[in-house]
Amino acid sequence: MPPRQLKLAAFFNPPGSHVAGWRMPDAVPTDLEFDEYLDVVREAERGLFDMVFFQDSAAVPPAITLAGKDTEAAAGAARTVRIEPMTLLAALAVTTTHIGLVATGTTSYNEPYHIARRFASIDHLSKGRAGWNLVTSQNEDEAQNFGRDAHLDHALRYERAAEFHDVVVGLWEGWDHDAFIRDKASGRYFDPSKLRILNHVGKHFRVRGPLNVARSPQGRPIIAQAGSSEPGKELAARTADVTFTAQTSLAEAQAFRADVRERAMRYGRSPDDIKIMPGLNYVLAETESDARALYEHLLSMMTDEVVMPSIMRLSGGLDLRQFPLDGPLPELPQSNAAHARQKMLVELARRENLSIRQLARRYATSNGHNVFVGTPKGLADMMEAWFQAGAADGFVMLSPYYPTPMRNFVRWVVPELQRRGIYRTAYEGRTLRENLGLVSPAPPLR
Amino acid sequence: MPPRQLKLAAFFNPPGSHVAGWRMPDAVPTDLEFDEYLDVVREAERGLFDMVFFQDSAAVPPAITLAGKDTEAAAGAARTVRIEPMTLLAALAVTTTHIGLVATGTTSYNEPYHIARRFASIDHLSKGRAGWNLVTSQNEDEAQNFGRDAHLDHALRYERAAEFHDVVVGLWEGWDHDAFIRDKASGRYFDPSKLRILNHVGKHFRVRGPLNVARSPQGRPIIAQAGSSEPGKELAARTADVTFTAQTSLAEAQAFRADVRERAMRYGRSPDDIKIMPGLNYVLAETESDARALYEHLLSMMTDEVVMPSIMRLSGGLDLRQFPLDGPLPELPQSNAAHARQKMLVELARRENLSIRQLARRYATSNGHNVFVGTPKGLADMMEAWFQAGAADGFVMLSPYYPTPMRNFVRWVVPELQRRGIYRTAYEGRTLRENLGLVSPAPPLR
Ligand SMILES: Cc1cc2nc3c(=O)[nH]c(=O)nc-3n(C[C@H](O)[C@H](O)[C@H](O)COP(=O)(O)O)c2cc1C
Ligand SMILES: Cc1cc2nc3c(=O)[nH]c(=O)nc-3n(C[C@H](O)[C@H](O)[C@H](O)COP(=O)(O)O)c2cc1C
Repeated sequence: MPPRQLKLAAFFNPPGSHVAGWRMPDAVPTDLEFDEYLDVVREAERGLFDMVFFQDSAAVPPAITLAGKDTEAAAGAARTVRIEPMTLLAALAVTTTHIGLVATGTTSYNEPYHIARRFASIDHLSKGRAGWNLVTSQNEDEAQNFGRDAHLDHALRYERAAEFHDVVVGLWEGWDHDAFIRDKASGRYFDPSKLRILNHVGKHFRVRGPLNVARSPQGRPIIAQAGSSEPGKELAARTADVTFTAQTSLAEAQAFRADVRERAMRYGRSPDDIKIMPGLNYVLAETESDARALYEHLLSMMTDEVVMPSIMRLSGGLDLRQFPLDGPLPELPQSNAAHARQKMLVELARRENLSIRQLARRYATSNGHNVFVGTPKGLADMMEAWFQAGAADGFVMLSPYYPTPMRNFVRWVVPELQRRGIYRTAYEGRTLRENLGLVSPAPPLR
Repeated sequence: MPPRQLKLAAFFNPPGSHVAGWRMPDAVPTDLEFDEYLDVVREAERGLFDMVFFQDSAAVPPAITLAGKDTEAAAGAARTVRIEPMTLLAALAVTTTHIGLVATGTTSYNEPYHIARRFASIDHLSKGRAGWNLVTSQNEDEAQNFGRDAHLDHALRYERAAEFHDVVVGLWEGWDHDAFIRDKASGRYFDPSKLRILNHVGKHFRVRGPLNVARSPQGRPIIAQAGSSEPGKELAARTADVTFTAQTSLAEAQAFRADVRERAMRYGRSPDDIKIMPGLNYVLAETESDARALYEHLLSMMTDEVVMPSIMRLSGGLDLRQFPLDGPLPELPQSNAAHARQKMLVELARRENLSIRQLARRYATSNGHNVFVGTPKGLADMMEAWFQAGAADGFVMLSPYYPTPMRNFVRWVVPELQRRGIYRTAYEGRTLRENLGLVSPAPPLR
């Protein structure tokens, strides 16, 4: 058996994961032009990435709400518009050949029948490369686009998410792979004995089924999950093929991975069936000092208006702009948006004794994820160390902007990882499930 | 000014509009293979069609429910699975260049923010070729996939649809065309003075906005509408760029078109800004007798199990299988699914004195639309006559199966129409709106 291989996802938060990255001279502010997306995705495919992953929220970012009447304060908010990710995946499905295609779909503002249909359809279009990142929603501005003032309570959102998941998987598994016979002679289009009608009746959903999409090439699309709170980890342990997470130190990442694997075993799963992938921002250059200079340059392009919203979405409703920005972070009310993220934020401020402004700048650089600044070899060293120490099965790579950093990663870092024998030199299979080394097709849920 | 030109849409109800068409030796039962869809769509594009149009329902067809425990009775239901249409449009957006891309999205089981985002995204991906067919849902089986036992009442569905429409258009028009400046030097990504936040508060929806997609190339995607009841015609007159309709005689079609145009004028619109397109099934061959033989062959492949569901979805809940199939149609309770369609069905049975079985077979052939059986010249004659007599601005062509009938139409009928000077010989513009000859960008709603 070949040695365990590192998994890679390319994270998209258009036009880049660094709040000011789009201002770089070589940055292409990719947000609505398909060819620009395709360019970066094909680069990731050349780099043999397992998947691209489009994060999402069904709202503009909080900057616009926070700006209130002072609309000019929102002008720097780059991550405001984009191609809706499931729509984008469909277009990428027919213009790429190997790379996995993953997008966020929130369980808080969708219906399971629609989500099941769309991802099953993308799985057909891509011949087995679709993945659904199940989230319960972070950005509180979503609520007001769907008739609510605020999110449902955190616990209730996760309860809904768990049931939502079960309905979606139940719909995906309603038809056997060989149900559609399309026999012209007899006039039988399908074999009804290969159909199970779901008839789900639960607390949050009543869904009869069946799905009007046949069983998809992967058996069912890959499920990713990205919550790190207690119920988030439980849901991941029970349901996820992939867990995205934000971890800033090797020790924390080890503990997180061990925890999720342990929980997966309690659900009777093999811990290797859940790939744990922390996010990793990277600022690369051929020398340390060039990388440091690039990092400083990125920092220098940030303004208070642009950085403050990134921590205010975790402030539990407190308007941090009312406090001295060079003073300490005040006590925060519990956030309903994201428990684990808020906890990390508060701990970071305390640990490094950061002022509000410093914290905001740090957070806006990384979105709470780890940041690597250095050379390709240094990055490969770090990734290998985390991988071998059981802190990660792979990484979600966050590019500060597009397309240069991704090109550099593929050109400089991928060969380093391959040389070390921890990264593929060709795609193993045709489906995302195969490339991730997961059982295919997935075993039935019930 | 060139003479008024006929508009054409290619209708998709995979794997074909005739319930048994897929059984033809040359039929490709297109339902899940993208390349098969693309093949037919490119053929329509070679034929300079204005648009392809994917009808939809978020459920399997009634045949499966009606079969109940006798599941084998549903085995012939061909139109059971498909690629979800909005997903499919995205894939077609990046693999075609001129043809308009229209899909159904029901206002009864969706949220306006999602619909606005998806069609705006498709408009960006296709560089201005997206269209949304707004329906209130016909197939009653949808209800049970969304937590309900039955549709909302017809009147309430239309009330919701009208408000849904206004929210969607309001979201589409939230950003001016030149809002996104992406100015690296100043750090201003957009100009906040070019943004209007919707803040919609109505009876059915509360939606703050703005949309997280920039103003789309067409100003806003094309809106098609396909209801023919009283509230359906009102909604079309106020909102639609295109009206799809089922009309079986020239006189009825003339009356319908005059009615909708008259209503449009009452809303202060130019009647030419709403293109009225009846559906038209076609069974073509190079001679009359070959066409008639093909039609008879298609009929001969129908079974009772396959045809009965097509009228039972309009029976207002009455199980017509309990009546002698060779006897007359009993009195039907008012359908909540489709008023106008039910009325047509009852009138057809009465007018032609059809038994239940005959009616079902007729209906399953045509879905209530007109059926032409004959030669290419005969079809062009009929289309020209309707067009010149003010019965239609164009037609929605329903192919009994794929791909042969569409190829024959493009090869045989398109040149006939062109020779008569009523059909384009090249696309006029790059956007669907331009090709339809509509004002671009559309004037603001308010
Ligand atoms: C890599 C990564 C990607 C994420 N992507 C999204 C996203 O696209 N949309 C979203 O609402 N939340 C996203 N989240 C946030 C989580 O899904 C989750 O909503 C948040 O962490 C709150 O859940 P928790 O309290 O369980 O941590 C992401 C988190 C991580 C680590
Ligand atoms: C060409 C055409 C296409 C249609 N496509 C759909 C569709 O995709 N989905 C749907 O639910 N109804 C569809 N309909 C039905 C109407 O939208 C509408 O739901 C039905 O006619 C009931 O409305 P009414 O009572 O106003 O006639 C279509 C009708 C026509 C004429």
